[in-house]
Amino acid sequence: MSNIAKTPSPPYYAVIFTSKRKEGDFGYEQMSKKMVESVLKQDGFLGFESARDEVGITVSYWRDMESIKRWKDEMEHQKAQELGKSIWYKRYRIRVAKVEKEYGFEAK
Amino acid sequence: MSNIAKTPSPPYYAVIFTSKRKEGDFGYEQMSKKMVESVLKQDGFLGFESARDEVGITVSYWRDMESIKRWKDEMEHQKAQELGKSIWYKRYRIRVAKVEKEYGFEAK
Repeated sequence: MSNIAKTPSPPYYAVIFTSKRKEGDFGYEQMSKKMVESVLKQDGFLGFESARDEVGITVSYWRDMESIKRWKDEMEHQKAQELGKSIWYKRYRIRVAKVEKEYGFEAK
Repeated sequence: MSNIAKTPSPPYYAVIFTSKRKEGDFGYEQMSKKMVESVLKQDGFLGFESARDEVGITVSYWRDMESIKRWKDEMEHQKAQELGKSIWYKRYRIRVAKVEKEYGFEAK
């Protein structure tokens, strides 16, 4: 599932979503899968990376602010956001950032 | 160890470090602790968040590009970067981004 995203040359945008979950699933995994299927079809979506241990960090990458806004307002995603607040999360922070530089390393 | 960082009002910078590790520790945990102790003392460092399952994601937050550059060039950190490439990582991507918006949620 989770890998390192292949993104185009900057500039583009990143949404850093850091969260603490409550105990128990309560439909979280199912919704999570649904949201992944849905975000992959969004115009302007470039990729995402996700990991969880004590905190969960999901970084999604976007062409521009408009596509981030459209995803935030998407109907099913709105429902997921509501359930997130009422059921799944103790707390979260969302940071929207403009990626200015990218570089990397690959072992031979 | 890992929590949600408390950061000031934007703008500030984020360094998103996403990695795939090789099998085995080879001094990684020890160096990781050393780097955390060291980064906490860096001028301009604002906080960090970290999680690992299939990929590792560490996001560090910084006052400005100059403090990111100073940390990149710090001597012990340079050694860690070299060991990272020769021993610990299969691959990684680093993205430097300017945080423009931040918001969050806290359950009652």
